[in-house]
Amino acid sequence: MTTEARARDEFEDEPRSARKRRAILDAATAVFLRNGYLGTTMDEIAALARVSKQTVYKHFADKERLFSEIVTATVDKIADPNTDEVLRLKDTGDLDHDLRDFARRQLRAVMDPRLLQLRRLVIGESGRFPQLGRLFYERGPGRTIDALATLFERLASRGTLELDDPHLAAAHFNWLVMSIPLNQAMLLGDDEPATPTELNRYADAGVRAFLAAHRKR
Amino acid sequence: MTTEARARDEFEDEPRSARKRRAILDAATAVFLRNGYLGTTMDEIAALARVSKQTVYKHFADKERLFSEIVTATVDKIADPNTDEVLRLKDTGDLDHDLRDFARRQLRAVMDPRLLQLRRLVIGESGRFPQLGRLFYERGPGRTIDALATLFERLASRGTLELDDPHLAAAHFNWLVMSIPLNQAMLLGDDEPATPTELNRYADAGVRAFLAAHRKR
Repeated sequence: MTTEARARDEFEDEPRSARKRRAILDAATAVFLRNGYLGTTMDEIAALARVSKQTVYKHFADKERLFSEIVTATVDKIADPNTDEVLRLKDTGDLDHDLRDFARRQLRAVMDPRLLQLRRLVIGESGRFPQLGRLFYERGPGRTIDALATLFERLASRGTLELDDPHLAAAHFNWLVMSIPLNQAMLLGDDEPATPTELNRYADAGVRAFLAAHRKR
Repeated sequence: MTTEARARDEFEDEPRSARKRRAILDAATAVFLRNGYLGTTMDEIAALARVSKQTVYKHFADKERLFSEIVTATVDKIADPNTDEVLRLKDTGDLDHDLRDFARRQLRAVMDPRLLQLRRLVIGESGRFPQLGRLFYERGPGRTIDALATLFERLASRGTLELDDPHLAAAHFNWLVMSIPLNQAMLLGDDEPATPTELNRYADAGVRAFLAAHRKR
């Protein structure tokens, strides 16, 4: 093979490998969510992705690594924009409005049906596989709460908020906004337990309670 | 058999039957928590309880009925005293103190290791068996929140609290107290994720935030 031919081949191989990786991740997500962690086999994932089991193992060393990738990708897709958005709020000229806006978007993202299913699965397995739950917690709520704590500390130093412990206040904010619909979804097993209007109402009420407790008078 | 003998026999049968029932429930709880709902068989429960499978079926029509009994018994043991205690708070002369006291006890009860395990199991299975999660929700958090709503409405009419929506305020109170340690426990898979001192700190902070938002000024 000439150097040129090899270069072209590698160039074409790259997207094919990425496509296969994507197909494996999609298939794995579907199988994990349907059968649970223990009930999922690499064979089933390979079959659904239409690749050989060897190809699955070439991309992902084992089932746990594959599941970790899914948790990371799914949670990051929600938490990355959340974190960016929180940090932009530090220069807000209208805290009530912007905090409500953020809370509404955050709650809608967290109540995504696929994320709810993944959260149930991770919780159900967290006794046996705590590292999966830790990954979910740290990249998800943990990261959003850290970003909120930085924001609230700044708003307190500007004299907008009143709080002793920014991290505690951030966690309270997070759960005031999310807990009611999220706990219902977790226990009732319903993937769309609340309408967008209801979710907005919960987000607004959470922000209102938070500001009633922490607005500088 | 004489009537007298039969009466004595039934009298003695009663406790034996209750003992067997208790043994089956204990064995079933252990097997469910270890193997999950799908991974549990009536055979295994019978073996651990040292009764015949027929005896298991005499007491519980099927696996789902048996699991429902466990959820009901476990959750009621926590929620029954909670509900009574909430209702007694309506005549409190020291709301801060009594609400804090209640929150501390409630949080400690909810963070019971066995209840945490059961909650994880119910959440993990709620997609497939939503009726189990519904039972958990309605007899657990749902009932406590209803009782708190009645209390808060009364305190508002007495002029102690200020709130538009007693049920929403009750849910906020509940999750302000419990969400931080409970969500960590759910995701991190740790059955004793917080020390009693830490739990008290979370309970106190939740009550403080609630009263900062809702105390009548």
